[in-house]
Amino acid sequence: MRKRKICVVITARPSYARVKTMLHAIQMHASLELQLVLAGSALLDKYGDVGSIAEKDGFTICERIYNLLSGAAPTSMAKTTGLAIMELATAFQNLKPDIVVTIADRFETIATSIAASYQNIPLAHIQGGEVTGSIDEKVRHANTKFADLHLVASESARQRVLKMGEHASSILNTGCPSMDIARAVLEKPAIDFNPIEKYGGVGAEIAPEGKYIVVMQHAVTTEEMHSRVQIEETIKAVTALDIPTFWFWPNVDLGGESMSSSLRHHREEYDLDKARFFKNMEPEDFLRLIKNSACLIGNSSVGIRECAFLGVPVVNIGSRQTARERGQNVVDCGHNAAEIEAYALKQIAHGHYASEPIYGNGHAGKTAADALAAFDLKFHKTLAY
Amino acid sequence: MRKRKICVVITARPSYARVKTMLHAIQMHASLELQLVLAGSALLDKYGDVGSIAEKDGFTICERIYNLLSGAAPTSMAKTTGLAIMELATAFQNLKPDIVVTIADRFETIATSIAASYQNIPLAHIQGGEVTGSIDEKVRHANTKFADLHLVASESARQRVLKMGEHASSILNTGCPSMDIARAVLEKPAIDFNPIEKYGGVGAEIAPEGKYIVVMQHAVTTEEMHSRVQIEETIKAVTALDIPTFWFWPNVDLGGESMSSSLRHHREEYDLDKARFFKNMEPEDFLRLIKNSACLIGNSSVGIRECAFLGVPVVNIGSRQTARERGQNVVDCGHNAAEIEAYALKQIAHGHYASEPIYGNGHAGKTAADALAAFDLKFHKTLAY
Amino acid sequence: MRKRKICVVITARPSYARVKTMLHAIQMHASLELQLVLAGSALLDKYGDVGSIAEKDGFTICERIYNLLSGAAPTSMAKTTGLAIMELATAFQNLKPDIVVTIADRFETIATSIAASYQNIPLAHIQGGEVTGSIDEKVRHANTKFADLHLVASESARQRVLKMGEHASSILNTGCPSMDIARAVLEKPAIDFNPIEKYGGVGAEIAPEGKYIVVMQHAVTTEEMHSRVQIEETIKAVTALDIPTFWFWPNVDLGGESMSSSLRHHREEYDLDKARFFKNMEPEDFLRLIKNSACLIGNSSVGIRECAFLGVPVVNIGSRQTARERGQNVVDCGHNAAEIEAYALKQIAHGHYASEPIYGNGHAGKTAADALAAFDLKFHKTLAY
Amino acid sequence: MRKRKICVVITARPSYARVKTMLHAIQMHASLELQLVLAGSALLDKYGDVGSIAEKDGFTICERIYNLLSGAAPTSMAKTTGLAIMELATAFQNLKPDIVVTIADRFETIATSIAASYQNIPLAHIQGGEVTGSIDEKVRHANTKFADLHLVASESARQRVLKMGEHASSILNTGCPSMDIARAVLEKPAIDFNPIEKYGGVGAEIAPEGKYIVVMQHAVTTEEMHSRVQIEETIKAVTALDIPTFWFWPNVDLGGESMSSSLRHHREEYDLDKARFFKNMEPEDFLRLIKNSACLIGNSSVGIRECAFLGVPVVNIGSRQTARERGQNVVDCGHNAAEIEAYALKQIAHGHYASEPIYGNGHAGKTAADALAAFDLKFHKTLAY
Repeated sequence: MRKRKICVVITARPSYARVKTMLHAIQMHASLELQLVLAGSALLDKYGDVGSIAEKDGFTICERIYNLLSGAAPTSMAKTTGLAIMELATAFQNLKPDIVVTIADRFETIATSIAASYQNIPLAHIQGGEVTGSIDEKVRHANTKFADLHLVASESARQRVLKMGEHASSILNTGCPSMDIARAVLEKPAIDFNPIEKYGGVGAEIAPEGKYIVVMQHAVTTEEMHSRVQIEETIKAVTALDIPTFWFWPNVDLGGESMSSSLRHHREEYDLDKARFFKNMEPEDFLRLIKNSACLIGNSSVGIRECAFLGVPVVNIGSRQTARERGQNVVDCGHNAAEIEAYALKQIAHGHYASEPIYGNGHAGKTAADALAAFDLKFHKTLAY
Repeated sequence: MRKRKICVVITARPSYARVKTMLHAIQMHASLELQLVLAGSALLDKYGDVGSIAEKDGFTICERIYNLLSGAAPTSMAKTTGLAIMELATAFQNLKPDIVVTIADRFETIATSIAASYQNIPLAHIQGGEVTGSIDEKVRHANTKFADLHLVASESARQRVLKMGEHASSILNTGCPSMDIARAVLEKPAIDFNPIEKYGGVGAEIAPEGKYIVVMQHAVTTEEMHSRVQIEETIKAVTALDIPTFWFWPNVDLGGESMSSSLRHHREEYDLDKARFFKNMEPEDFLRLIKNSACLIGNSSVGIRECAFLGVPVVNIGSRQTARERGQNVVDCGHNAAEIEAYALKQIAHGHYASEPIYGNGHAGKTAADALAAFDLKFHKTLAY
Repeated sequence: MRKRKICVVITARPSYARVKTMLHAIQMHASLELQLVLAGSALLDKYGDVGSIAEKDGFTICERIYNLLSGAAPTSMAKTTGLAIMELATAFQNLKPDIVVTIADRFETIATSIAASYQNIPLAHIQGGEVTGSIDEKVRHANTKFADLHLVASESARQRVLKMGEHASSILNTGCPSMDIARAVLEKPAIDFNPIEKYGGVGAEIAPEGKYIVVMQHAVTTEEMHSRVQIEETIKAVTALDIPTFWFWPNVDLGGESMSSSLRHHREEYDLDKARFFKNMEPEDFLRLIKNSACLIGNSSVGIRECAFLGVPVVNIGSRQTARERGQNVVDCGHNAAEIEAYALKQIAHGHYASEPIYGNGHAGKTAADALAAFDLKFHKTLAY
Repeated sequence: MRKRKICVVITARPSYARVKTMLHAIQMHASLELQLVLAGSALLDKYGDVGSIAEKDGFTICERIYNLLSGAAPTSMAKTTGLAIMELATAFQNLKPDIVVTIADRFETIATSIAASYQNIPLAHIQGGEVTGSIDEKVRHANTKFADLHLVASESARQRVLKMGEHASSILNTGCPSMDIARAVLEKPAIDFNPIEKYGGVGAEIAPEGKYIVVMQHAVTTEEMHSRVQIEETIKAVTALDIPTFWFWPNVDLGGESMSSSLRHHREEYDLDKARFFKNMEPEDFLRLIKNSACLIGNSSVGIRECAFLGVPVVNIGSRQTARERGQNVVDCGHNAAEIEAYALKQIAHGHYASEPIYGNGHAGKTAADALAAFDLKFHKTLAY
């Protein structure tokens, strides 16, 4: 019997970690064939080259789609998305997948949805039904409206997708595949690699044996003009904390460039002299590093999702994760250096929290692959009410 | 005080008629300024040149966006949409509108939504919340998910948009602006123009004084491969009816080209010798012609919407209008010549129906303009539940 | 030994006929493999579907590139070319040809040259070194400047390419492959098909047994605004001549649409009632039809090139073929009905001319294929002086 | 009288310096109006933000065209060019220039030529007729073939453009506008700014008062796979020389990213500890820095052009400037550390050379502006032979 071809499109660095165990489960599945497509910022070394990591993990990259426009124009998000649609349309025509999988809610993920739907290819969506701030909110639910199969990450997400008028039979709470890795890390939490040796990075010579914190702060595209000011508050707070820090560069979102520029400037001025800057790490290493940190500071969804499972204390800054379902481990604060510092000290003092399986119990990859194999192929739907 | 700039993007011929009274109301509004953008098939003479009609109606075209790819490739819908996003992004950057308005549910309307949302411009959507078949179903609800203001055309549509998680305060049932024209036509139904003299067209010399029918059948993009067979059934039925016929060419949708080719072929073979073929008419003339017809045959939404208000008997063929709310005036049938013919005879025998205001009471344009003026500008939203 | 992959890109209907014997020679060549790519107007039924003809001729289409934007915008030629570059870049990356072949001088042929050169693929150019009017003049010589191998169609063309600074070893006068077909037609000139039965077309029922003329007039893009006036003069002249006429529709060039519209208008008015309109014919049929005509009227390069070899009298109108090397068989005239009519009568009275092998002796296809096989692969060059 | 609108498109950092005096002369000219368009890498901070510099110099940026695709795909050059054509077509339609000016020979300059020519806008080309290696050679001469007016930089360039079949009346040897700045620098050579204070940069704290060298080495796109190896040889040589070094980062050309990566790597390893790295400087500062250097090492055309006028000793590496007309001040060598070091020592020992006005006498800007004002507007041409 011909294997069902599942084309997964990854358009950004963090999405890879989010679906890695699902990719493995598809690859291993008796009746599925994996077609992995990388696009946009997932291809840029600057933002962590997903291609090399994926190949090292045993995956073959079917297509590389270079659709990211350079430069911080107000039109960039739209044009990058328009280009992605045009390029993905060609890729899907050549690959002829049975199902296309789009992931989460970054602005360019809608390109995957459109290119598939407009060629009558059934679409599966990962991570629908969640609630956050930013443009992501619009994109995520629009993806839901294009999708024929919804593989959601939490029970409340399932409820919301259902309420939005999708048919119950098309929605499955698989949990988030990223929790599969978190589960493995919880089972074996010791850091078994040297971050600087393995990943280089720039900045201070710090070691993960001692006490350290992790910072991950991205731009909020709808507050783009405040990006520099926002990161400056965090920089002030981290400088004041004066603890060794693993800092991950901002991603490609509108405003990220000016955040990076601010960070580079402070580095050249010899501020942040206890910080080491990284672009990316393999998902297991990354979660292990976070698991052993005293606190995560920033606005990454990792703080909300993986850290709930890992029990890591988090100081979540600003509006980027507004409304996302969260655990006991998170405290929220504004873009204010004093506030950030105070909450960080409190969280460090508190220490680790109990694990909360809000986003899955750690078996999402296999469940998702099975659902893709079992899905009754169709690209037609009507509102349930 | 600076007037609020309202940019309305029209991407297809029928959308113009659907919003014409709203365009007038915006233009007349003390605190609004109209920016009219034409794109895609709205610009092609082949499908009825909206530009000339709009200019004759007193509107200025701010931008003409040529984004339609020639040729019936499987990738055309996606690439045409990708191009539209890229071109509209530039247009919006130049026009700097306060609100962008996207209309209904054709595949390329999502381009308007994306280009506006990704530049943080508030988006209003006309005709959300309805239910139909085809790819339009996905596109319409995705537009809803991008929109900040919903101007819907019926009470049931309002309910659906609300259920989908939009906030009640952002939804207004204005009715469909097209009913404003239908109301004027109902008040003064006599045909006051000579269709052939005014619009040319090709085919038989027929007059609107006698008994006649109207045919409007478009391709169903998700059944594209059956387009030719589907139109052939209708051709057979109309040939058998042997009544003077005003026939409007299929639109630009995937499959439309092969329908037109089939029609041209039959014309050259001297079939359909009682039919006159038109591309387009001014909205008032068009509704007046339909109002005075014995029956409308096809799958146009005009049969479901305007004809409910006008009380014109309709034979609705196939899946294109599946699930759209309808009045007593519609009978549904399959793509089968005998069935179409039989239902048409029955509908002609029945004669006109009572007017049903399902899609508005005929004051939508003004209501919509007022809503655009009153809307609290924002481009941020979260799900209501 | 691996065969050398030769990728020939055809972007317009007439180019197919021009290279057909070369395509066959490549396909038959022991050390070559043909990769045939169709793009732009070559794919549109409206302008004669090259794809079907090529497949009937035994060729496989490797890629179909839909890059033609609909609508007569001032920006269309540029944007269609930009799109072609983007799409051909992907195609070449997938096909990995050893040599790419670009043909002649239509505006979009530069896209082939750029997409190949910018990926370091050696480029061969057919029909360089000729001199004409219009934008083609710029495009043709720019193609020469990108090309690494020049397969020219006449001795004077070879001289010009040499003078432009290309190295003598990279230039070969193969003659035009279209003359290979003309040679076969000269050897067996009788019309062996019924044009209407085989190709349909619309208009008068005329037969190729009697006396007839052929009209082929395209828009001159740099005189686009005069297109309608120009074709009207020809229509007047042909109406006055009152001889059965095989008329080929204008091509896709800017201005062609308004010419076609004028022709359709006259047709509906029952002018041109001795004319039959065709989109396209197979090359052999086409040349046989011309060979047996009393006169060719218009501005097609067929009048200058193939008709020199065939000895058919030609009335060449306007600037489109200005400066192109021509034989005794051509008289030139302006866009003036009286003048066109007078010259046509004179040419018909004169009858056929002696064959002149200006554009080759009829063995170009084989010579070109051999040159492609023997070419020392490189994509680097410097001016010869 | 309406001023003639001259639209100059700058697509890369070095082009700005090359035409700056011409821009001023256009802006000052009684009958000209300047429309300055920035595109591609000229807009990226990473490669030196031309926009800020130009605005500081008193110019207004009419349009910013973001057409540069991120990531080092084999298709990037082609796609970036295709996008540029599409975006420039819109810009020219909005700006309605009387003449468009394209500069030199980078791959994307052909986009300017095509977008202008295909909209029937007369095209002027700066720096035609020169001879070099790389893909630039093809692009430069193709630009010549699109251009209606040729403003060349040397007598031998004028001869070559003439030989290529352009009409003598359309060619003017203005000299290179960059020499206008070089002339001013020669008249007042003292360095009047602190490079590190004014431009930041990263690396060693060096001062321009002492002896120093300058390095500028870009990727050769046709030798892209050797980029890293090539820069490593230069790094070895410069390390061995052990002299304070002002080093300018490689530009955006294919291969440049891997060169930069190699440089960053060596920096992090504390090699090159006497080097300071800069992105860009204002043209006057830049030439003053070079004028006072002991030697310029690399493959920039600055070494061949401006340095001939300034009399600065140059070690020119590899094939990038092959065949470009050069003065006594240049010695050529291969990609070999030992060779580079030896030649550099020899050049430093030799000291400065006499000024050679090969590329103009320093009044090019004014001459070019006058030519643009006097040019008989046309967009039609035929080969001169």
